[in-house]
Order: sequence, then C-alpha cells, then structure tokens
Amino acid sequence: MSRRISRDTRLCMSLSARPGNFGTRFHNHLYEALDLDYVYKAFTTTDLPAAIGGIRALGIRGCAISMPFKEACIPLLDALAESAAAIDSVNTIVNDAGHLRGYNTDYLAVRQLLDEHGVSPQTSFALRGSGGMAKAVACALRDAGFQDGVIVARNEAAGRRLAETCGYEWTPELGARRPQMLVNVTPIGMSGGADADALAFDEAAIGAAQRVFDVVALPAETPLIRAARARGIATISGADVIVLQALEQFALYTGVRPSPAQVRSAAAHARGG
Amino acid sequence: MSRRISRDTRLCMSLSARPGNFGTRFHNHLYEALDLDYVYKAFTTTDLPAAIGGIRALGIRGCAISMPFKEACIPLLDALAESAAAIDSVNTIVNDAGHLRGYNTDYLAVRQLLDEHGVSPQTSFALRGSGGMAKAVACALRDAGFQDGVIVARNEAAGRRLAETCGYEWTPELGARRPQMLVNVTPIGMSGGADADALAFDEAAIGAAQRVFDVVALPAETPLIRAARARGIATISGADVIVLQALEQFALYTGVRPSPAQVRSAAAHARGG
Repeated sequence: MSRRISRDTRLCMSLSARPGNFGTRFHNHLYEALDLDYVYKAFTTTDLPAAIGGIRALGIRGCAISMPFKEACIPLLDALAESAAAIDSVNTIVNDAGHLRGYNTDYLAVRQLLDEHGVSPQTSFALRGSGGMAKAVACALRDAGFQDGVIVARNEAAGRRLAETCGYEWTPELGARRPQMLVNVTPIGMSGGADADALAFDEAAIGAAQRVFDVVALPAETPLIRAARARGIATISGADVIVLQALEQFALYTGVRPSPAQVRSAAAHARGG
Repeated sequence: MSRRISRDTRLCMSLSARPGNFGTRFHNHLYEALDLDYVYKAFTTTDLPAAIGGIRALGIRGCAISMPFKEACIPLLDALAESAAAIDSVNTIVNDAGHLRGYNTDYLAVRQLLDEHGVSPQTSFALRGSGGMAKAVACALRDAGFQDGVIVARNEAAGRRLAETCGYEWTPELGARRPQMLVNVTPIGMSGGADADALAFDEAAIGAAQRVFDVVALPAETPLIRAARARGIATISGADVIVLQALEQFALYTGVRPSPAQVRSAAAHARGG
C-alpha cells in the first residue's frame, strides 16, 4: 500500500529511454511478499549526469540502467564491480551512503544460467547480435571458458569489435556453419518489433543445434524458442534471463534473497503487466 | 497499493534535514482517496544542488522544501511564483517538464486563514520568532494590510531584519505591551522540544488578547492554544496551517482540489502517523 510509505521507506528505480513495467511490478511484488519497506518506480531522463547525481544526493538505494545509458553512466559512478568491469557495461547501480557502485546482472544471470543448465564450455556456438546485451552475453561465454564461438552481426564494425573483445570470430552471416549452440541477442522475435515473427537463425541451423539460447524476453516463447522446442532441442529463454537479472538486483538492493516460489510468483505478476 | 505503481506513476517528494511523516501520509492518503496515479516520499540530502538537479532530470513532479533549504534552493530554480517572491522563501517546487517554479504555501495558508477567520487588518499584533516560518507569517500579515505589529525576538539581528522587511517594530521582549493578537512562530510548545510545556507569551498578555495564533502544529493543542481556549479567546492553530499548506501543495502538484471531508480525513490520517 502506498499509504504505508513513510520517511524511512527506501526507493529503488530504473532509468531507461523507454521505461517498461517489468521491474516495477517484479520488485514491488517482492517488497510486499517479503514485507520490506521499499518502493520501486521507473524513470526516464534526458540528463543522465543530473539523474545519477540525484540518485546519489537523494539516497535512492538502487537503480536499474537500460538502453542507452549502460556505458554512458560509467564515468558518473564511484566504482565498478567485477561483473560490470568485465564488460564495461552497467545495468545496476547500488548506492551505499552516496558511494555508487556499478554491476551487470545481465552478465551474472547469463553465467548462472549456463552453469545451471550444465552447458559445457566445449560447446561450439554462434551468437547473433553486437549491441550492449550481446556484449554481456559474449563476455559471459568467454569468462565461462567457451572458446569455439562466432559472432554473427551485419554491423561489421560492432561485430568485429565484439569478436575481438572476447577472442571469437566474426561473420556477417552464419552460412553453412552448424554450431552446437545458437544464441540470439538481437530483437528478432520480440513482440511488437519489426521482426516479431522472424527466426533469428534458419531452420537448418536450428535442426542441427543441441541447444538454443534466446535472450528476447517478450514473448516468453519466441519463434526461435518455439522452433527449438518443437524439435526437442534444449532451450534457455530470455524470460529466464530477465527474471534472474532482476532477482540479482533485488538481492543487491535489499540484501534479501527470496525463495524460488516467491520469485516465480513475482515473475508471473511482472509478466502480467 | 505500491503494486499498482507503474512507469506512469508520478512521484512527489519532500526535502528537509529531518523528514517527518505528515506530508507522506497526507498526500498518499489523498492519492488513494481520489484514485490519482501518484506516490509521495520524504527525502533528505546533504547536496542540495544535486538533489534539485535530480528532481529536474528525473521528472519528479513536485517537492516540498523544509528547513534548512527554503532560501538555499532559490538560485537552483527557474522561476518564483508571487507567494515565494513576496518573502524570498520557497517551501514548494513544481516541475513542469524540467521547468522548476518555487511557491510558498505557508504564506498562502496564513493569508487564507486570516481571511477565513475574519481577522481585521486593524488588529494590533505581536509576532514571536525570527526564522524562515516567521518571515512567511510576518509577510502574510504585511500583505494582508496589518500595520500595527511588533516582532518579538531575542535574536536582535534576525528580529530587526524581519521587522524592517515588513515595516514592523522589533523588541527583544514583549514587556508590558498588550496587542490584540498574539502570534507564535517559535518552537515553544512543540511536542518533543526543549520548551514543550512553556507558553510563548505570558499569562497577562494572553488574558488581554482577543486572538491567539500558534503556528506550532504538533501537538494540535499547544499550551498557548490551550490557555487561550480556557479563557474563551479565539484561536488559529498550527494544525490548520500545516493542513492548508499541504492542501495547496496537493492542488499545485495534481491540479485536483479535494473536498473538505477528504481533506479532514487525510489530515486525521497524517496526524496519526
């Protein structure tokens, strides 16, 4: 209840060009379930330095950072945790009495999912994409020991840069390659997008793969994930990534780790929004 | 319900050295009663320019300003409304798409109460106090046409300055004066303070007065108000001031004016906190 809010209630927030409702609903649901004196609200800004300065000056406890601020915020922070330093990209700020530390819980979530699903670092993979999230995923693969990878990106400059950063190959098209794991980190298959019905990889590549990992979170079952499941191929979905990364943020902000049932309930509530 | 908060919910807030709960409870209660998509939260800061910059950059809709920021915030704003310009003191900031305008709803509330209670500007008065709120009250009296006034303040520099600003006399002690209205704008009689049980004016002056106006809001019945009421003397209490000034803030932030019954309910709820 907002009527319960007092001077002692802590505010957590998000900053992005186009705020969504997932974080707001996820975090507020867990605050209520766990009876924590926090409240969460999404913001946007056209003045990132002033917004970050405001977080520090107002004692706002934590802030999720989305596009296009993930790299631009770095010079405004006081420290970077390993997860953010590893990829030079911040999606989470924690404010300890005015000291702002940047984390990357996307990176942490991908590493954890690769581990939970028992994906061997010997697995060959193709990763499609070259944006900020692609960097988080490629660096997570690199740091988990995956060596046999190719970055598929039409944007040659960004693709080559990412491939070089992580020690992988770059190619503009997958072509005849048949890697064991296909990783999509483009908006292809995202609901509401221009390519909502498209497949990020062609049928032949999907049919030859052992595992498909799609970072697109909405819908929970993208065309790529659906095609993989129809063939009985193991999957990791963006719905898992978004929940896990939000859960890591929650734990960083509050120091509390909810139960798996509480997380499932919060995720279902957040997706309903 | 905090679970109802979405990306579209607007945040209003307060900034003070020692945040209370009155505003948070008053505003959130009315948001719920009127089904407005707002949420209110009190903050403190040690970096006023960054805090005000954050209000602008994050699109925070409104901010109540308390001690010790009422004058310091002025150079950080884009404009002053007449109520704030009249006394060079801001207790309310309204943010219209990044344009910050300062108001003083204490001043507005005092003017309105003098009017509602039908206090004639011919009334002679003594005002005890010389701080920021004393300035708001003295200027409200001046602008309502009260001419026969004396500022009672032990702090000679501040007392003289305030008297000069408003065209009143200054005196360190009331002495044998017997003005028709006694106005207390010091913390004397405030619950929890050093002088919680003291009277801001002596018994003889109270007995000779026609009206007592105490700006102290907690308790709603201060020793001064109680002494006046016991003698059948008309009163205006700080509980009225705090509610009216919060109501003016509410109307400025939301554009909505609640009914008297809704205001009474919100005030009772806020005092309960």
